[in-house]
Amino acid sequence: MEKKPITIACRMDSERALNLARNIFNFLTKKKSKEVLLETRIAPKIMPHSSIDLEDITADNSEFIIIIGGDGSVLRVVNGLSQKNPPPILGVNIGSIGFLDETFEKRIYNDLEKVLKGDYLIENVSKLTAYLIKNNSEELRLGNALNEILIISSKFSKVLQISIKIDGVFISRSYLDGVIISTSTGSTAYNLSAGGSIVSPKLDIMQITELNPYARTGLKPIIIPINSEVEIRLLRPRLNGKIVIDGQTTIREIQPNSKIRIREAKCYTKFIRLSTSLSLNYYKRLRKKIIGNLRFPLDDSPEE
Amino acid sequence: MEKKPITIACRMDSERALNLARNIFNFLTKKKSKEVLLETRIAPKIMPHSSIDLEDITADNSEFIIIIGGDGSVLRVVNGLSQKNPPPILGVNIGSIGFLDETFEKRIYNDLEKVLKGDYLIENVSKLTAYLIKNNSEELRLGNALNEILIISSKFSKVLQISIKIDGVFISRSYLDGVIISTSTGSTAYNLSAGGSIVSPKLDIMQITELNPYARTGLKPIIIPINSEVEIRLLRPRLNGKIVIDGQTTIREIQPNSKIRIREAKCYTKFIRLSTSLSLNYYKRLRKKIIGNLRFPLDDSPEE
Amino acid sequence: MEKKPITIACRMDSERALNLARNIFNFLTKKKSKEVLLETRIAPKIMPHSSIDLEDITADNSEFIIIIGGDGSVLRVVNGLSQKNPPPILGVNIGSIGFLDETFEKRIYNDLEKVLKGDYLIENVSKLTAYLIKNNSEELRLGNALNEILIISSKFSKVLQISIKIDGVFISRSYLDGVIISTSTGSTAYNLSAGGSIVSPKLDIMQITELNPYARTGLKPIIIPINSEVEIRLLRPRLNGKIVIDGQTTIREIQPNSKIRIREAKCYTKFIRLSTSLSLNYYKRLRKKIIGNLRFPLDDSPEE
Amino acid sequence: MEKKPITIACRMDSERALNLARNIFNFLTKKKSKEVLLETRIAPKIMPHSSIDLEDITADNSEFIIIIGGDGSVLRVVNGLSQKNPPPILGVNIGSIGFLDETFEKRIYNDLEKVLKGDYLIENVSKLTAYLIKNNSEELRLGNALNEILIISSKFSKVLQISIKIDGVFISRSYLDGVIISTSTGSTAYNLSAGGSIVSPKLDIMQITELNPYARTGLKPIIIPINSEVEIRLLRPRLNGKIVIDGQTTIREIQPNSKIRIREAKCYTKFIRLSTSLSLNYYKRLRKKIIGNLRFPLDDSPEE
Repeated sequence: MEKKPITIACRMDSERALNLARNIFNFLTKKKSKEVLLETRIAPKIMPHSSIDLEDITADNSEFIIIIGGDGSVLRVVNGLSQKNPPPILGVNIGSIGFLDETFEKRIYNDLEKVLKGDYLIENVSKLTAYLIKNNSEELRLGNALNEILIISSKFSKVLQISIKIDGVFISRSYLDGVIISTSTGSTAYNLSAGGSIVSPKLDIMQITELNPYARTGLKPIIIPINSEVEIRLLRPRLNGKIVIDGQTTIREIQPNSKIRIREAKCYTKFIRLSTSLSLNYYKRLRKKIIGNLRFPLDDSPEE
Repeated sequence: MEKKPITIACRMDSERALNLARNIFNFLTKKKSKEVLLETRIAPKIMPHSSIDLEDITADNSEFIIIIGGDGSVLRVVNGLSQKNPPPILGVNIGSIGFLDETFEKRIYNDLEKVLKGDYLIENVSKLTAYLIKNNSEELRLGNALNEILIISSKFSKVLQISIKIDGVFISRSYLDGVIISTSTGSTAYNLSAGGSIVSPKLDIMQITELNPYARTGLKPIIIPINSEVEIRLLRPRLNGKIVIDGQTTIREIQPNSKIRIREAKCYTKFIRLSTSLSLNYYKRLRKKIIGNLRFPLDDSPEE
Repeated sequence: MEKKPITIACRMDSERALNLARNIFNFLTKKKSKEVLLETRIAPKIMPHSSIDLEDITADNSEFIIIIGGDGSVLRVVNGLSQKNPPPILGVNIGSIGFLDETFEKRIYNDLEKVLKGDYLIENVSKLTAYLIKNNSEELRLGNALNEILIISSKFSKVLQISIKIDGVFISRSYLDGVIISTSTGSTAYNLSAGGSIVSPKLDIMQITELNPYARTGLKPIIIPINSEVEIRLLRPRLNGKIVIDGQTTIREIQPNSKIRIREAKCYTKFIRLSTSLSLNYYKRLRKKIIGNLRFPLDDSPEE
Repeated sequence: MEKKPITIACRMDSERALNLARNIFNFLTKKKSKEVLLETRIAPKIMPHSSIDLEDITADNSEFIIIIGGDGSVLRVVNGLSQKNPPPILGVNIGSIGFLDETFEKRIYNDLEKVLKGDYLIENVSKLTAYLIKNNSEELRLGNALNEILIISSKFSKVLQISIKIDGVFISRSYLDGVIISTSTGSTAYNLSAGGSIVSPKLDIMQITELNPYARTGLKPIIIPINSEVEIRLLRPRLNGKIVIDGQTTIREIQPNSKIRIREAKCYTKFIRLSTSLSLNYYKRLRKKIIGNLRFPLDDSPEE
């Protein structure tokens, strides 16, 4: 395995991120005589000859891929990579909101040493695939989601009306801004903002969370096995919807009466984790990045 | 007062609504020898010579205005009417979600008789005005809201970061989809979907309700007197916002560091209400249209 | 299997329930020459000689147990039965809130015919066990929960302060009324009222849902595999807690610094389900009993 | 006014609070030759001859009352004081959750100097009164609430069923743990934990917030003018309720079919506030004690 190159992807719009990419590139090429590849759009700024297109990167030609940025950058790269056999990801946070990342600027070189020594675990993460069915025609595959598939109104000020089926059983009909179908991985992202629950990555699930249902009368968040099939139908005459995958890809002009089906994807995303157990790694990231640490006086007691 | 004409506004995209407009037009012209005006866009379909532009309609030239549709239609007309001295509104629901309406197709002729006899109350409703301040320059007036002013990200998949001041005091900073500043009238509309409280129209207030704050860490809904000033500042570099007034008017390309100020408007909207008291009228509409009627068994008791 | 008796349990405080128990007793004894047993407390009202104590009922001496009442009755019986090898349950609703029940008064005889023919499925349901650790001493087993284990303040008006660990990792500290640790089965019960998510019974999980955390700053609901260990510690000096299991059993006077641990129970509860698939059975009960059916006009469309 | 004594009330169960009470007592008697009174239960520990019963303290015999503790202590004293003409309150926090307090240990002597010079504002706070009506008999006055009146089930594990009327109009019927009717002052207390909105003290209101309604189907929080009348009726046969006023006074054994009415109280509570405006004082306490200060990176921007 040590003969494969390492790939670096990075935000374009941050000098700080690009500088870090350059330094990591130099660190890896010097220290380990490793071949290092760069995603096409940043290569001209660092080493033009080492360029590789995102869609060509696989586990066959990359030992792993370093992604410099926040969760947005990870999602962009995951959506851009080959879906079949992608390399493991090492996320490096540079100051944004980031839950998927494993390390950050100050710790990156130490952590890279560990990874190069093979001193890490792989977190294997399930994904979802969205399909579109127009007028009862055949299914059109739309793409894979690591975090969530979001179905929303095409006009912000016009509420959607949708019906939801699970495994072919009609569940409910609601007026709402939209609906989120998220993975465990995505449960701490938009799903949580919308009122859904946090779900351990050990549980392979889909979570259906409605976005601002009218008069709060909608379906409460519901969590089902990932091998279920969710079908959303757009009901409101003359109101199109749109589908947003991981906040990265938008499919517009979804017409009334279209159905969107969501099922488990046939591929995985792999994350490099630097802890003695994946469970410990998860709960610590959860506490640090999502839950935070309320500071109440520890000796507080009620008046008797 | 009986010498002023009555005006009719109506949805264009519903034959049912246009037929009802035509029938009401005939009912009023025949029965009472009343002059009846029609908003410009529907006049060609009913009586071309009786046309009047929305922005020209005032309490001086219209005894009242009948609006046929749902809440969306009422909001469109309220936003299109002269802001200074608008006539009272009689909302006629034709099957959509409607909370502002007072009557519906089956009862409209009975109810019109009552109104023509003066057998009604006027509900006087406060509004909000939004102002834009770019680069600490002067305030630019954006428009008046009956229901709410919504500030959202210009890109659905990129969360806004905003700070909120009330009466000049810094209150909080949040990552979120957007923020709603609503009136009492708007408290049962988008504000309620987003988790805000229902507020009696007798209370003259603004309610600030955050839309899907990141990790649910945002400000809880807060209700303040309508003579307060709310200031929202867009903080995230390179991310524009947009402002949506009553779901009708959208102001785009609000740049980072812009401030939006919201204060009580200097004008009112008037609704015709057909009850013995405004309070009774409100609570009955609330129960019927928002709360609904859960049917639990009345003789249910716990096992002892 | 057909040689085993059938057992009947029933609410005591409802004449209607007792009459139904009597009729079912007669139906079964006549029609099938079946032996029918009655839980001790109702036997005197129906057939004194056929009495059996709840704790003595097992799958060895009962083909199945009919429970007449609502969810409260099912929970009482499940908590009273032998925990080791309990018989399958057929719940008969008589008008209360009931999600666990499979049939109701009008359909009971038809459904009993099906069950007697073996025309049913068994839903095998995981449970939780609570343990108490005082002053770092040994674990004291408190009991098993089908729905949830609730830890609350002993004084309604004094908020608890607790810390939560999962698998030994500290997660959070909160001020709150209490905390619910529920199963999938319990996810639609108190957990849902408190803001937790609905979880498919196919997923073997624990859900931790905080009850009214102070200033809404608490942990959001979190869902973890059922083979996890949750540890709750009471932190507030001079404030006792209490533990309520399935709303049936209350353990009082839990002192500050006590720890409560929750793990998967080593026993199951079995429900008789009368559908072609457990999944279909679940989603239909969910829609009918929890979600309800909002009636919005189907031809509603936004004004254009 | 300077001739009236100052009174001190204090937690009994905290040495730290009692020491502070002693020090403040000495500070006031020495420095200003003021007469200082002590609530009866703490007097023996400080100066037995200066004792006064809470219920005897009025604005006629006390210039103001210093309360040492947290919100619980303020609520205890407010409920124990003469309701007719109570003196203004200066709350001194000693480390607990406290929103009503104005000062704390480190700043108390500076702040006392200001108060003695008259350099303060008075916040005049409305309260609610609860009345009980058994079997349509006469109203029985139960007591006044500064924060909230809470109506809950007498058995924690049995949900209440209640109906709610406002100004005589039936609003809704729900299954729930309980219902909170709070003032603006109480809006940041239990009401907020239960999902209600924060309400500015400038608005004289009641907020009705349901506590864990069954399947989340209950009434959303509703805010009405304080001169409204709320009537709650207990509906579930054989299930008593109880009423808790400000977490201090509990009225038990409220029987099915009893009605509880809530109206504005005829008395006020006065707080000493040390700011240039009551509005500024409120928003600063709100930010500091309730909202907190999320620390997000200020230069965060989305990847382009």
